[in-house]
Amino acid sequence: MAADKIDTIVSLSKRRGFVFPSSEIYGGSKAAWDYGPLGVELKENVKRQWWRAMVTSRDDVVGLDSSVILAPEVWVASGHVATFSDPLTECTSCHKRYRADHLEEAYEAKHGKPPANGLADINCPNCGTKGAFTEPKQFSGMLQTHLGPTQDAGSAAYLRPETAQGIFVNFAQVQTTSRKKPPFGIAQMGKSFRNEITPGNFIFRTREFEQMEMEFFVKPGEDEKWHEYWMQERWNWYTDLGLREENIRWYEHPAEKRSHYSKRTVDIEYRFNFGGQEFSELEGLANRTDFDLSAHAKASGQDLSYFDQEAGERWFPYVIEPAAGVNRAMLAFMLDAYNEDEAPNAKGVMEKRTVMRLDPRLSPVKVAVLPLSRNPELSPKAKGLATALRKHWNIEFDDAGAIGRRYRRQDEIGTPFCVTVDFDTLEDNAVTVRERDSMKQERVSLDQVESYLGSRLLGC
Amino acid sequence: MAADKIDTIVSLSKRRGFVFPSSEIYGGSKAAWDYGPLGVELKENVKRQWWRAMVTSRDDVVGLDSSVILAPEVWVASGHVATFSDPLTECTSCHKRYRADHLEEAYEAKHGKPPANGLADINCPNCGTKGAFTEPKQFSGMLQTHLGPTQDAGSAAYLRPETAQGIFVNFAQVQTTSRKKPPFGIAQMGKSFRNEITPGNFIFRTREFEQMEMEFFVKPGEDEKWHEYWMQERWNWYTDLGLREENIRWYEHPAEKRSHYSKRTVDIEYRFNFGGQEFSELEGLANRTDFDLSAHAKASGQDLSYFDQEAGERWFPYVIEPAAGVNRAMLAFMLDAYNEDEAPNAKGVMEKRTVMRLDPRLSPVKVAVLPLSRNPELSPKAKGLATALRKHWNIEFDDAGAIGRRYRRQDEIGTPFCVTVDFDTLEDNAVTVRERDSMKQERVSLDQVESYLGSRLLGC
Repeated sequence: MAADKIDTIVSLSKRRGFVFPSSEIYGGSKAAWDYGPLGVELKENVKRQWWRAMVTSRDDVVGLDSSVILAPEVWVASGHVATFSDPLTECTSCHKRYRADHLEEAYEAKHGKPPANGLADINCPNCGTKGAFTEPKQFSGMLQTHLGPTQDAGSAAYLRPETAQGIFVNFAQVQTTSRKKPPFGIAQMGKSFRNEITPGNFIFRTREFEQMEMEFFVKPGEDEKWHEYWMQERWNWYTDLGLREENIRWYEHPAEKRSHYSKRTVDIEYRFNFGGQEFSELEGLANRTDFDLSAHAKASGQDLSYFDQEAGERWFPYVIEPAAGVNRAMLAFMLDAYNEDEAPNAKGVMEKRTVMRLDPRLSPVKVAVLPLSRNPELSPKAKGLATALRKHWNIEFDDAGAIGRRYRRQDEIGTPFCVTVDFDTLEDNAVTVRERDSMKQERVSLDQVESYLGSRLLGC
Repeated sequence: MAADKIDTIVSLSKRRGFVFPSSEIYGGSKAAWDYGPLGVELKENVKRQWWRAMVTSRDDVVGLDSSVILAPEVWVASGHVATFSDPLTECTSCHKRYRADHLEEAYEAKHGKPPANGLADINCPNCGTKGAFTEPKQFSGMLQTHLGPTQDAGSAAYLRPETAQGIFVNFAQVQTTSRKKPPFGIAQMGKSFRNEITPGNFIFRTREFEQMEMEFFVKPGEDEKWHEYWMQERWNWYTDLGLREENIRWYEHPAEKRSHYSKRTVDIEYRFNFGGQEFSELEGLANRTDFDLSAHAKASGQDLSYFDQEAGERWFPYVIEPAAGVNRAMLAFMLDAYNEDEAPNAKGVMEKRTVMRLDPRLSPVKVAVLPLSRNPELSPKAKGLATALRKHWNIEFDDAGAIGRRYRRQDEIGTPFCVTVDFDTLEDNAVTVRERDSMKQERVSLDQVESYLGSRLLGC
């Protein structure tokens, strides 16, 4: 995969309405992005597939949607107030700020070994000055706000940096009301906020992002087995939805780099190819042990242990957490689906074609309805068909320009099927259905189109 | 509808896992709520129905998902920094804080006329002291935070108090990339945050809430017609999904109470029956004129007008905005669906039954699969059926306790169908399907169950 593919995706995203720089009319910002008409559909499809795979298709996982702003005590007990911070350093020559750990990782990736003298060995990526960095200071990654009419310490609150804590503090209520017993999980999707020092790489690292997290509660001793189980499940989810095995890999966190709560963390990494760095984190799978439930039990004085009736004993469940990023997953699916091949133009000459080979379950538009020309007989037929199909799927209706050009527009955004209504339709009451990847065309009777597409868009 | 119905819903919500007080293990808060396994499904169903009705089933509305944290300039241009505030007053006797406008509205609702001498005529709802209120001060309703490593004025940012501004600042990009022409709309769902002085009434008024907003851009002069159109559409959406006409009504905002951008605002109100107040706002429909686009064009220096090729003229579109609250809609649907009737118990004696008559499209669980008893022959058959149905819908499997009691549990959460696998199933390979409202039972062959339910759960 070419390193400049990411630039191609950024530019296609803006041009076609997947992702725009946020607040661009005010000069924009590379730190936040807005999702346009196609982007919001693709992103929602990623979330829907996750929810189906993780919640509704299983009988051992239930859903939750907790607040972004939780009681401040939650973040003290969880350890975030004390330890959720990044090492901030500044180049004293050009005053650009960096995460010290990212500088050292980039050095290691380039030289194959960590810098012997730490930051002193590293050149500033901005101005090139060597070792002019300040001593790193710990900088909290949590965004703060104030609730209520006064801005004193008592009104301070945090925007959650992860959705997981909302699951832990609701553990007992969910477990009781859903009558589930370990092993069982609680899943949640939603926005989280982190005060990143260096947001960047398009929608990969932003201060506002969406997570899909599931906490799976198991009997202590069975945690390692379940960790392996969920690693396999999550790997399969990505490959089933189209990521190629050659573009993903495992990364085992060394003990010294693990979060304070983790017994073992393994990431699924994707070949994003961000300048110089081939693989980056797509999803983290952590064994959080009983750290969080124990910490909240202690801090709140509530009993968050589980009484195992069969064994007649009481224990704190261990927790396996597959934590995925919605935005990163969406970007990986786009990168993997992006393709350039050849297609014949109107004169039959082969020309370059851009095609996004998205799994139909992810495609923002499922079917495009294309009347061959703007014509008082074709248009109503085509519009009627589009209306009928809209009951099931997100549909585009396009009657502007040459048909080949309209196919190209749909290929580029990953629409699996184009349906052309032409002058023969007025005779044979049939339409041409064109499949995106093979470009094969099939004539289908108008009254069969819905079921024809239905059988090819299963699970959409 | 009894005034204490809301208390019944709050208690049922907690007991069955619809809505929990947020961070309850830390003493909780009446200002924030978390959505449990059933609540998150119901809330998502409300959102899905809105998105279908407003976006994917139409060819003149497209979707968007913009950031919660936009450039601070957005909120200056929109007028929110200057005018998005509430009049805060405090009772000097008991020091409880109130919104002065809410105190005056409550007085008017009770006495049929506004207080002649303003706050001086009003008794404190908490301690009863008359007219001991401080002079109201304007208090900003926007939550603030700081981005980046320093907490100075330059790093200050706001959490959006409405999703609408994200639509206006993206207007030109969305219009161009989606190739839509007025009349057309841009729809968005997502979290907004308001620093409410007096959060309360369960999930009705919270500092963190979800909105479903659509901005419909039209030619000036056609705005009033389109306002009427969307009023009708939105009214129909609520009644189509089950709200009874007798429980909703229109409220026309008097000129002096309209927001700074509004030419006309009409609310759909629902009979929530919050202590003393019968009707409260469910959705607001505003004619925002060209206020926002003009303001952002002026402040940003970008051209946000539309060039009308047919008429050969350039104009700023007028905007009709149907703005709904996800949480309020969910609460209204629950209140309206809640019902108590009678059903026969195991001995055939009629007993009280609680039933939530939710439209199946909103029901959190679509089908419950109930093996008559835990039995080595029945259980696998029932589990196999549950697994098959899970491909389409959210399913509950329940094999604990008397069958009547299990029906009651499903009635209470609004599950439209229960499927019972009994000993006859082993003979005739059929199951009993029971419909929630009529309690009628029908014997359906096992290989027909999926299509039987499919035809009754259309659009789910």
